Amino acid sequence: MANIAKKVSWSSRGDDRGERTPLLNGAEDGKYSNRQLSGGAMFHIGRLSTVDLEEEITPEEDIVRSRPKEIPHNEKLLSLKFESLDYDNSENQLFLEEERRMSHMGFRCLEITRWVICGLIGFLTGLIACMIDIAVEKLAGYKYLAVKQNIEKYTELGGLSISLILWAVLNSAFVMLGSLAVAFLEPIAAGSGIPQIKCFLNGVKIPRVVRLKTLVIKVFGVICSVAGGLAVGKEGPMIHSGAVVAAGVSQGRSTSLKKDFKIFEYFRRDTEKRDFVSAGAAAGVSAAFGAPVGGVLFSLEEGASFWNQLLTWRIFFASMVSTFTLNFFLSIYHGKPGQLSSPGLINFGRFDSDSVQYNLYEIPLFIIMGALGGVLGALFNIINYWLTIFRIRYIHRPCLQVMEAMLVAAVTATVSFAMIYFSNDCQPLGQDNTEEYPLQLFCADGEYNSMATAFFNTPERSVRSLFHNPPGTYNPVTLGVFTLAYFALAVWTYGLTVSAGVFIPSLLIGAAWGRLFGILLSFIASSQSIWADPGKYALIGAAAQLGGIVRMTLSLTVILVEATGNVTYGFPIMLVLMTAKIVGDYFIEGLYDVHIKLQSVPFLHWDAPPTSHWLTAREVMSSPVTCFNRVEKVGRIVDVLSNTSTNHNGFPVVSDTTENDEPGKICGLILRSQLIVLLKHKVFVERASSRLSQRKLQLKDFRDAYPRFPPIQSIHVSQDERECMMDLTEFMNPTPYTVPQETSLPRVFKLFRALGLRHLVVVDNENRVSVSLLFYCGSRSAFNLQLIFRDAQNISAILVVLLVIVGRY
Amino acid sequence: MANIAKKVSWSSRGDDRGERTPLLNGAEDGKYSNRQLSGGAMFHIGRLSTVDLEEEITPEEDIVRSRPKEIPHNEKLLSLKFESLDYDNSENQLFLEEERRMSHMGFRCLEITRWVICGLIGFLTGLIACMIDIAVEKLAGYKYLAVKQNIEKYTELGGLSISLILWAVLNSAFVMLGSLAVAFLEPIAAGSGIPQIKCFLNGVKIPRVVRLKTLVIKVFGVICSVAGGLAVGKEGPMIHSGAVVAAGVSQGRSTSLKKDFKIFEYFRRDTEKRDFVSAGAAAGVSAAFGAPVGGVLFSLEEGASFWNQLLTWRIFFASMVSTFTLNFFLSIYHGKPGQLSSPGLINFGRFDSDSVQYNLYEIPLFIIMGALGGVLGALFNIINYWLTIFRIRYIHRPCLQVMEAMLVAAVTATVSFAMIYFSNDCQPLGQDNTEEYPLQLFCADGEYNSMATAFFNTPERSVRSLFHNPPGTYNPVTLGVFTLAYFALAVWTYGLTVSAGVFIPSLLIGAAWGRLFGILLSFIASSQSIWADPGKYALIGAAAQLGGIVRMTLSLTVILVEATGNVTYGFPIMLVLMTAKIVGDYFIEGLYDVHIKLQSVPFLHWDAPPTSHWLTAREVMSSPVTCFNRVEKVGRIVDVLSNTSTNHNGFPVVSDTTENDEPGKICGLILRSQLIVLLKHKVFVERASSRLSQRKLQLKDFRDAYPRFPPIQSIHVSQDERECMMDLTEFMNPTPYTVPQETSLPRVFKLFRALGLRHLVVVDNENRVSVSLLFYCGSRSAFNLQLIFRDAQNISAILVVLLVIVGRY
Repeated sequence: MANIAKKVSWSSRGDDRGERTPLLNGAEDGKYSNRQLSGGAMFHIGRLSTVDLEEEITPEEDIVRSRPKEIPHNEKLLSLKFESLDYDNSENQLFLEEERRMSHMGFRCLEITRWVICGLIGFLTGLIACMIDIAVEKLAGYKYLAVKQNIEKYTELGGLSISLILWAVLNSAFVMLGSLAVAFLEPIAAGSGIPQIKCFLNGVKIPRVVRLKTLVIKVFGVICSVAGGLAVGKEGPMIHSGAVVAAGVSQGRSTSLKKDFKIFEYFRRDTEKRDFVSAGAAAGVSAAFGAPVGGVLFSLEEGASFWNQLLTWRIFFASMVSTFTLNFFLSIYHGKPGQLSSPGLINFGRFDSDSVQYNLYEIPLFIIMGALGGVLGALFNIINYWLTIFRIRYIHRPCLQVMEAMLVAAVTATVSFAMIYFSNDCQPLGQDNTEEYPLQLFCADGEYNSMATAFFNTPERSVRSLFHNPPGTYNPVTLGVFTLAYFALAVWTYGLTVSAGVFIPSLLIGAAWGRLFGILLSFIASSQSIWADPGKYALIGAAAQLGGIVRMTLSLTVILVEATGNVTYGFPIMLVLMTAKIVGDYFIEGLYDVHIKLQSVPFLHWDAPPTSHWLTAREVMSSPVTCFNRVEKVGRIVDVLSNTSTNHNGFPVVSDTTENDEPGKICGLILRSQLIVLLKHKVFVERASSRLSQRKLQLKDFRDAYPRFPPIQSIHVSQDERECMMDLTEFMNPTPYTVPQETSLPRVFKLFRALGLRHLVVVDNENRVSVSLLFYCGSRSAFNLQLIFRDAQNISAILVVLLVIVGRY
Repeated sequence: MANIAKKVSWSSRGDDRGERTPLLNGAEDGKYSNRQLSGGAMFHIGRLSTVDLEEEITPEEDIVRSRPKEIPHNEKLLSLKFESLDYDNSENQLFLEEERRMSHMGFRCLEITRWVICGLIGFLTGLIACMIDIAVEKLAGYKYLAVKQNIEKYTELGGLSISLILWAVLNSAFVMLGSLAVAFLEPIAAGSGIPQIKCFLNGVKIPRVVRLKTLVIKVFGVICSVAGGLAVGKEGPMIHSGAVVAAGVSQGRSTSLKKDFKIFEYFRRDTEKRDFVSAGAAAGVSAAFGAPVGGVLFSLEEGASFWNQLLTWRIFFASMVSTFTLNFFLSIYHGKPGQLSSPGLINFGRFDSDSVQYNLYEIPLFIIMGALGGVLGALFNIINYWLTIFRIRYIHRPCLQVMEAMLVAAVTATVSFAMIYFSNDCQPLGQDNTEEYPLQLFCADGEYNSMATAFFNTPERSVRSLFHNPPGTYNPVTLGVFTLAYFALAVWTYGLTVSAGVFIPSLLIGAAWGRLFGILLSFIASSQSIWADPGKYALIGAAAQLGGIVRMTLSLTVILVEATGNVTYGFPIMLVLMTAKIVGDYFIEGLYDVHIKLQSVPFLHWDAPPTSHWLTAREVMSSPVTCFNRVEKVGRIVDVLSNTSTNHNGFPVVSDTTENDEPGKICGLILRSQLIVLLKHKVFVERASSRLSQRKLQLKDFRDAYPRFPPIQSIHVSQDERECMMDLTEFMNPTPYTVPQETSLPRVFKLFRALGLRHLVVVDNENRVSVSLLFYCGSRSAFNLQLIFRDAQNISAILVVLLVIVGRY
């Protein structure tokens, strides 16, 4: 997360709010509309959007406050570092020609190719997940074995501090490796990766997030951090890995390795890539939890806004293949090849369906647990929020980050050791001996230390023990202390510069207090056998805690049902997740949303704020106007593209201005990326004659440059060439979506959200003047955009179309 | 289904294809564009859209055929009887004023109200489902008891034909009651209701489908038909019931009962109603199968195109409440109040998770079964398709329909009786005696006839027995004969004029051949114990058969997992459903889609046909142009609305035409329903002075009239009033969505699908002439619309906007 922190601190430095400020923090532009809006009201528009859409501020109140209070680190502003993805196909002549040339058969082949790619994504994601699983298990196994032997050796000798040091050093060493890789090689690989994938699916391009290098560092990092005994899980990184695999495989090449397989070229655009990344994320969830349906729902709940049946089936297919691959290889690893339904493959152990019963009178208890989970989750998020701000301010150098990670690792080991040491909760070793590493310590022979079960284990195994160990395995005091200690550790850990997820620690905390809850219940009503199973309450507690932290409902229900192999608890889990969400939302957003906000990502929510009907497109559109003519001088294009203050990404094309300087009508939209490719290939009108011998520019040339279009600075244009003309007709999108300037904001928002737009042109069709603008898809709200109203150049023009674009979106 | 049949036969009678034909079967309009399109090509556009989007016809081939081949009953044409729903809020001044007046708190209250309504929907749906469940069980119980006693009596006496007659008469009597109600009182209540709900969610208003009367008849009908022993299930009708409940509750009034509770008035529009109907359908699925997650997925897979997180959570909530209500009341009925997780509440019985194992080498077997299911499902659909066409042609009078239903009931009884009679498959009665009505017949004492288990039971119980009875319960020959007989009966039954679903019969057929498959397998590989459980194969077979018939995948997987309470088979079920879908789609569409096509419903698919890029909006837009001025003469409005040949539902409003007759520019869109309310309230400019004393027309007046706006004929307008003027400015939507006329069809389609539009205005912004048109949302494809190109009235006009609307959409 620290890389994100850096971004935020970077953006917070740009505090001058001038034209060049990288933050969209309201309109400082002097050119206001002819509507009677004061500067305060203007600012209000910017402010409303960026700061507190959810807060209840009446417009009047708002205008009064001329500026928002200074927020410590400007975390509520939006960073301009992020560009948005464009899910709208640019239907220019080249594209239409290609599409029209394709036969029905061609489209069918494409469809089959999509399925094949999804299969591949699923397979590779499953494979990676399997690798992570096995590596973590092996490494953690070696580590715990070494420490156990050491403890056993020194328990009698009395030098247990040596064991502690050994444990802490081993932990720190693992974590150091992972943290070094993350901090110095690829900072974006830090954290769980789910916020980044959420942003990507929302339409925000987080730089470097789906690169091969990120994948490698992520996988390495997560193995190190889990093996290093941190309070982390490997699920988030698996989901991220799936997304990276999808983004790579679907493009048929690796830009990092400079290897182009010349396949899947059709899919080299944002629209198609997004679909595959959804599939990859689903495959990741599916592999992480063995939950294919949960994976699909995760992708849909967190990501896609446009539901398409065929796409869903493909995502489902990728998820299935992923689980299948994982289970197949794990079944081989476990020595039972082919036994795909073996209970060992169920992540959190299968709940036996005969023992799982619940009754009507338990429902209120579940609801109470849900509320508790919501409160605890909110507490977690709040503490983590302040911690992250602290990190942003003070721990932004990579070496400091590595040191913090190592410190946490050492502290984790120490706390665990202290817990185990001071706990005198001895339990008899069962016949079946389900414990991996039973620590005897000061217990009698044939007994083991039960605190060690929770701490001396990977978190995933601890969850399993809490769910399934028979009643009486844990002492209530042990559980209580464990909950507190682990809560603190997990809060501290999330946001470190290591690859690590928060799912498993959340589940573990919840399982611990849930089991405690169950034990206490059975004390109160000792006679009733239905209370007897604390594992049930551990499950419910785990759901409540996780729900309180991440605030997912539908997908999480299905994930937990699939990961425990039991449908009966579906209803209580739902209930608990709903309650946790409602209670938690009262205090603070979900953890991922908190971190997305901290990154200043312009995240587009599901709906426009309800009270935004009084805003119209005209009031939120952006300046300055930059259009091109249908046939434009190369020099002007280069100048406009090089202008860093108006760092636009899409330009309306207008019909050539006639005499008396009146702006032309809109006739298309051209993207920065397209212009750059055109400049690179020097597609000038003057060269048309010589181009007859040359080949014509094709869609392939644009695809080859995707997605890393060179910056304008890298393209050399000579003085002579600057005088040439460029004909944009063939390359512009002649039918961009437009709205009239009186359109209300929710209507504009709906267009943005439903169609995944990056640019939207606002056109006036009144006779006097008209303004057109582009919105930003991916902006946290579509209206943190500046307002401009250009006066009519020529009142006599019947329909004047001006075009305003917002920069670098 | 027969009511649908009537509609089709009605539409097939209008064969003349004149201006007044109710079928949108291509453009016969002489006013063609200035593009070089022959009449053949023109027709092609119409044809392509209505007839065979999926067929591979190159444009050249197509132009050659000037007319489509005559199709027996015109089933591929689209009926104009259906209107479409409008999911686009008309954001006129009244609406915006209301929205702007509302505080943040107001919106929060609305949101809470939505949750309350969803809870109510869930509760009522669960209650209705519970009622149906209990009524069916009781009635069927009495019937089977009576028949059983009669059989036992006559087995020794030798007059078993009397028993047969008793059985047949009882069956026919039940079915007659149900069929009479459906055929004479509410024909739309026939069938499962799922196709109708699918259409509703797709945006097509099937008349009378969500009325209270339909609900009553449906519930009564389904109880009769299941109790009458037909090969039907009660699941489809439950889903339909949920949707009706939702449509009713969310509106806070019953138009049928003329009772307005004055609540939920804000939700009286298509947008909100659709959302609630999705929730209702989900609650229905949830109650029918005990599958809340499956319900949500069903609603999403079959219905909604726009995925909204909050909406999904509400739907999920409704589903949860519905399952909870049902389980709660059923637990009371079963005498175990409060035991919500009792296995008896799981629809198809809980699969014990210890016995359920599968291995890698069974995967190919599952795929084979999936393919078999696909083939058998396609066969089912094809036979039922031809049968339905036969019914459309020959059995369209209600009394004939009732007689057919009675005949089927009698035949079902006879076949069942014959099967039981000639079967000599005796099985020993177990100790636990799971059989409800074990028939001894000619078996030895302590034995029972196993054929009777399958036939002498409600289909749902038979499915349960096939899933769970221990190996050896069924004789392979018995199963084979049963499969054949039941397949034939089920095909014949679906489409009768009774309320009945196809889910359970499909599952039953599949379970029978699946179990047979399992038994045969265990013969082949007798030693291996993993083959030993034929129940597993019954489940897989059931999934395959159902998937082959209805072609759902994701939702069906989850439904089956939830209904059997077992997650382990999730993966094989997915695999089987995917295979069944792929194989089945090769032959024919799913059963619901077949019936939707047979109803000539203009169903909008997920994507535009892939090869439609060569069509532009201009080529598919519709004629004739009918616009209103901003201030229009009442007489003209009445005339236009009364004109049945151009039966439009939305009219572009243009700025008042100036002198020299040039059309004005578009400035809004007004709906027929709005005009009718305006006429009814006589909102004329001339009355403005007297209106000062009167109250101003409010949004409430429009809501009160929703959804049954009176026809224009019922509104009296005097000659004097005809001369008055009406100012539409305040009531029209000033910012309708528009597209340029060169927009490609997929782009237009995407707008329609993603935004749920009913009208889309096509505007030209070239100087010479521009055409604008409305599309139809809900049309099977957006382009069965006629083409027009009006010449410019005045070339000197800088921007002329003509508007073309297609009729009655």
